[in-house]
Amino acid sequence: MNTQIKIGIVGATGYTGVELLRLLSTHPHAQVTAVTSRSEAGMPVADYFPSLRGVYDLVFQTPEEADLAQCDLVFFATPHGVAMRDAPGLIAQGVRVVDLSADFRIQDIPTWEKWYGMPFTAAEALKEAVYGLCELNREQIKSARLIANPGCYPTCVSLPLLPLLQQSLLKAGLPLIADCKSGVSGAGRKASVSTLFCEAGDNFKAYGVGGHRHLPEIKQTIRSLQAEAAEGLVFVPHLTPLIRGMHATQYLHLQDGANPHALLSDFYRNSPFVDVMPEGSTPETRSVRGGNICRISIQKAPQSDVWIALSVIDNLVKGAAGQAIQNMNIMFGFNESAGLQGAPLLP
Amino acid sequence: MNTQIKIGIVGATGYTGVELLRLLSTHPHAQVTAVTSRSEAGMPVADYFPSLRGVYDLVFQTPEEADLAQCDLVFFATPHGVAMRDAPGLIAQGVRVVDLSADFRIQDIPTWEKWYGMPFTAAEALKEAVYGLCELNREQIKSARLIANPGCYPTCVSLPLLPLLQQSLLKAGLPLIADCKSGVSGAGRKASVSTLFCEAGDNFKAYGVGGHRHLPEIKQTIRSLQAEAAEGLVFVPHLTPLIRGMHATQYLHLQDGANPHALLSDFYRNSPFVDVMPEGSTPETRSVRGGNICRISIQKAPQSDVWIALSVIDNLVKGAAGQAIQNMNIMFGFNESAGLQGAPLLP
Amino acid sequence: MNTQIKIGIVGATGYTGVELLRLLSTHPHAQVTAVTSRSEAGMPVADYFPSLRGVYDLVFQTPEEADLAQCDLVFFATPHGVAMRDAPGLIAQGVRVVDLSADFRIQDIPTWEKWYGMPFTAAEALKEAVYGLCELNREQIKSARLIANPGCYPTCVSLPLLPLLQQSLLKAGLPLIADCKSGVSGAGRKASVSTLFCEAGDNFKAYGVGGHRHLPEIKQTIRSLQAEAAEGLVFVPHLTPLIRGMHATQYLHLQDGANPHALLSDFYRNSPFVDVMPEGSTPETRSVRGGNICRISIQKAPQSDVWIALSVIDNLVKGAAGQAIQNMNIMFGFNESAGLQGAPLLP
Amino acid sequence: MNTQIKIGIVGATGYTGVELLRLLSTHPHAQVTAVTSRSEAGMPVADYFPSLRGVYDLVFQTPEEADLAQCDLVFFATPHGVAMRDAPGLIAQGVRVVDLSADFRIQDIPTWEKWYGMPFTAAEALKEAVYGLCELNREQIKSARLIANPGCYPTCVSLPLLPLLQQSLLKAGLPLIADCKSGVSGAGRKASVSTLFCEAGDNFKAYGVGGHRHLPEIKQTIRSLQAEAAEGLVFVPHLTPLIRGMHATQYLHLQDGANPHALLSDFYRNSPFVDVMPEGSTPETRSVRGGNICRISIQKAPQSDVWIALSVIDNLVKGAAGQAIQNMNIMFGFNESAGLQGAPLLP
Repeated sequence: MNTQIKIGIVGATGYTGVELLRLLSTHPHAQVTAVTSRSEAGMPVADYFPSLRGVYDLVFQTPEEADLAQCDLVFFATPHGVAMRDAPGLIAQGVRVVDLSADFRIQDIPTWEKWYGMPFTAAEALKEAVYGLCELNREQIKSARLIANPGCYPTCVSLPLLPLLQQSLLKAGLPLIADCKSGVSGAGRKASVSTLFCEAGDNFKAYGVGGHRHLPEIKQTIRSLQAEAAEGLVFVPHLTPLIRGMHATQYLHLQDGANPHALLSDFYRNSPFVDVMPEGSTPETRSVRGGNICRISIQKAPQSDVWIALSVIDNLVKGAAGQAIQNMNIMFGFNESAGLQGAPLLP
Repeated sequence: MNTQIKIGIVGATGYTGVELLRLLSTHPHAQVTAVTSRSEAGMPVADYFPSLRGVYDLVFQTPEEADLAQCDLVFFATPHGVAMRDAPGLIAQGVRVVDLSADFRIQDIPTWEKWYGMPFTAAEALKEAVYGLCELNREQIKSARLIANPGCYPTCVSLPLLPLLQQSLLKAGLPLIADCKSGVSGAGRKASVSTLFCEAGDNFKAYGVGGHRHLPEIKQTIRSLQAEAAEGLVFVPHLTPLIRGMHATQYLHLQDGANPHALLSDFYRNSPFVDVMPEGSTPETRSVRGGNICRISIQKAPQSDVWIALSVIDNLVKGAAGQAIQNMNIMFGFNESAGLQGAPLLP
Repeated sequence: MNTQIKIGIVGATGYTGVELLRLLSTHPHAQVTAVTSRSEAGMPVADYFPSLRGVYDLVFQTPEEADLAQCDLVFFATPHGVAMRDAPGLIAQGVRVVDLSADFRIQDIPTWEKWYGMPFTAAEALKEAVYGLCELNREQIKSARLIANPGCYPTCVSLPLLPLLQQSLLKAGLPLIADCKSGVSGAGRKASVSTLFCEAGDNFKAYGVGGHRHLPEIKQTIRSLQAEAAEGLVFVPHLTPLIRGMHATQYLHLQDGANPHALLSDFYRNSPFVDVMPEGSTPETRSVRGGNICRISIQKAPQSDVWIALSVIDNLVKGAAGQAIQNMNIMFGFNESAGLQGAPLLP
Repeated sequence: MNTQIKIGIVGATGYTGVELLRLLSTHPHAQVTAVTSRSEAGMPVADYFPSLRGVYDLVFQTPEEADLAQCDLVFFATPHGVAMRDAPGLIAQGVRVVDLSADFRIQDIPTWEKWYGMPFTAAEALKEAVYGLCELNREQIKSARLIANPGCYPTCVSLPLLPLLQQSLLKAGLPLIADCKSGVSGAGRKASVSTLFCEAGDNFKAYGVGGHRHLPEIKQTIRSLQAEAAEGLVFVPHLTPLIRGMHATQYLHLQDGANPHALLSDFYRNSPFVDVMPEGSTPETRSVRGGNICRISIQKAPQSDVWIALSVIDNLVKGAAGQAIQNMNIMFGFNESAGLQGAPLLP
């Protein structure tokens, strides 16, 4: 297959933007033809991101200048609110869209408005948006025109749960605890005191304990598979001094006799980007650094009935740009792994 | 009070050893007179630890050369097995001992032998050993001759629980989950691949999921206060790329109507080294870096009955050397804060 | 001596501010009575810096509210321009001032204006300002009313040179190369992209190669001792992923027969905060972390006539807040080491 | 071209080994068929390096078991002494060898023996060994049977110098100072105290000031191009808390009127892996993280005749495994960039 599709990236100056550019630079069927940034319009991409010197000749354009309508697919790597405003018009012109922001992740509009603090204005588009958790919605993604690329925490938390929820294996009325740890790049590339090297470095803390935007997104996925399990969700994110990497430690109450390791292994046997590790394993974040992979292990806690599911992703890859490209591959009928086969960088 | 006691440190070449030396260097009532190391005998302390140049004139001696019997108190900062062998003889000569190793932490000998993999040979001494969690056992510590200084995880996990257990507030039959994260210095200062900069740096992982030595130690403390709560304990330690710092995130099922924040505040109102933070706070490890402090917050998870207790310590200070000196202060009737008042280093 | 002086800190929300607060919290003769911040007025210091919970009861005030005129000494930990405007008035009311900003460091006003990009408006005060490199100007500091606390690079670079310059040992016409590496806290605590964890972490780079504000400050010190040596100065700063710490590697051409190690050892024999290490040593930044110390070594390069001087400081302590307190101690006749005797934090 | 060559890797358990495996996993013309390790024989590669799960089915073998003679090319990623012993036999059987160790880097045997502390026993093989600095020796590499892959410091230091030395632009009798900073992975993956996370982390220091093994290697390259310039070399390596990355800051005295930026740009215009940046640039190590690239800038120091050359590489890629594969590509007539086109990982 020698197809070459044209790609646009809206808002490419952040970490998900540069990661899309990195991954797409060696994709066999995709060529980035337009990158937009209001603040950096006129700046060559390779001057802005020195890691891309010699890789791209593109120059950032304003969204108005860029001919996004000529693209086959546009990625939105923007703050929330932008895709909601601009994606529907592109779709109407036949462009397919993968939105890496949160705009189309939540189907319940009042819930979205509560957590994101702005009116939701794209109700029509939302109806056709497919939640791009590839391993859950592969079939619908094939024909989708608009993909809501999942958040990093929801990806890392949901993947170990899918096969268990599908079998209704979580005991109702008991908590489902997701203790999550994220690298700092999850906070994005914007000037702020709290993510300075001297604030986030050599430091570990919880945050968003009283409520985090990814909570309703995770609940929505759980609810779609085993409704009663969603009520027990407790989600505590923590910030850890990694640039990239996310680790979820989940504490589960499963029906007696469940064999979650077998279920997971079976469920993901044809999924190139989910690695169910041998029983007793402990995945580490560096084993996925730069790779589009979620590694999972599951085991029982000693002297206890609680199951412990561990999962790791690179928040910028399987948690953002990599999964977005995986969605693109599925949408266009490419090999699901195209452009995503680079092994993780260790050490 | 102008008392000056003589201090010996056995095995002072590790991280707890150098931290004892740092903290004792400005203690108003203690003078280190002997430091031992078999491997470094003859080496000046200030050559071995360049941070102590100009601070100490001491030279490492073999345990045989060092006149430990002349000391008022000896700290053991040794691998397990050493204090068990050598502390009883010193005690018999009137020396008081604070053991920073695990030798005297577990009262049940078969349990100790199972987890530490060697025969326990100091049953008599064990009978008088006091578990040196200062805020729990302050009275017994005053007159103790032998203190088992608690492990870092047990300190960080137990302090938020003490007031709740004392009131039997944990619901029986439900799990008590302690998801803990430790800096790398907890693994000690020995040549090993897994704690190399290029292995433990830029990486996050769980370890010891199938069982960790601090599990029976924590259970023992819980059991002593609310026996049935101990059975629910699930303890998962993680390694995070910090040099110093430990964070416990605990998920608790409390009796209806409990007001844990008020209980904690009241329980610790006279404890200089436990800081119960305002409701809604999230302690961070850097806020205790280098200080002998445990900071605690407690709050309910959103849309849930689960309580979340967060606690942080510097694993080398309140989790080791600082608490050892706090024990010493209590044993000798010094101000509990003597030598421990330096504010944490931030940033 | 039971003197207690009253201290004010103007602009205490940055890293030098919190470090002043940390160090002064255990100073035997100084009590902080006023801290100012325009942006945080009304905020308790202990809420703003959680490391200081339980240590200070102070609340940030606006400079107008704070009764700085009642202080014996005021530290300015402000951006440049502030001390120039506000210090002269305080001095006129009998308050002594240590300015940690750059305002009074350069005696040549056009040079200052060129590098700092604003008009200099305190020419009278400048005349009496003493450059607070304690080991160089101890005598003048005693009676000074206004101290210009040196920059971090100038401190680290100048201390190894002082004894050599005093003896005119640098060969004229040959370069004096100062290759310097700084931790990120030197850039201060302000929202910025370039010092984010994900930008400055896991990264090493030079900066300011075309010119850095500390260049004229270093040249001024060199010129005052051996004028012709200043012309050869080449100064390249680099950013290294440390929170605290600064390392200077200097390449020197010395007169034949010079014995720089002996000269340094002799020059600093009574200086408690300069540690001339044995020949062949290599100082490391962590050996001074949190301590008010500069460690120095000097040796000849192999197969070469070039001398290599290595020096390390904690940029926030000997490079800022610690040296400021050392200046205060000298000004008030306290023991030069008062409040500065805490050993560095290692690891 | 559909050639597929068979590759063996001797000693693949270290950081250069895993990096060879990562890079070769997507190489279009190379297939790894044998990996050896005495200590890990029998262990699947994917169990040893979890980042390679799903990427390789290989199992470590002892060198005796592995059929290295069937390979077209064997990489030695071994401690020095091994390739010297085993490479000649393979070459005699028609296998081409790229040695990543230091065995064949120094043509003067007594010099090698002095710095590496063992007898050199492969004098015949040494005669045909080609020093694999690709940009210097591309022609000889094409037909070489044995490549001495350069050290990381020599690569980083030499590349900015080659065009200048070729034109004899360095002034004789004046020093050529190479102040170099390396990430910790340069020290390899072996249990040691000095490279522990808690020793090398949050720390910066010089090392090997009195002499480092890469000094004679750098001098040999310089001498081959402009003999008199070699005498002035001063080389000081430093350890910086990066996993990957190397930065050289060089201070050069060039003949009057030299235009080094133009010379560098011209010299490297056809070299895909050397990026001469615009004047005034400052390369940063993260811009090459994971990529086979050396980025260089050169400029004059302000108020000085000294030129400052800055260069960065990823020590494991252009400084080791990547350059080794680049050598392989040249040897086998592949596109020089084959398998090496992945963009660096930023952030």
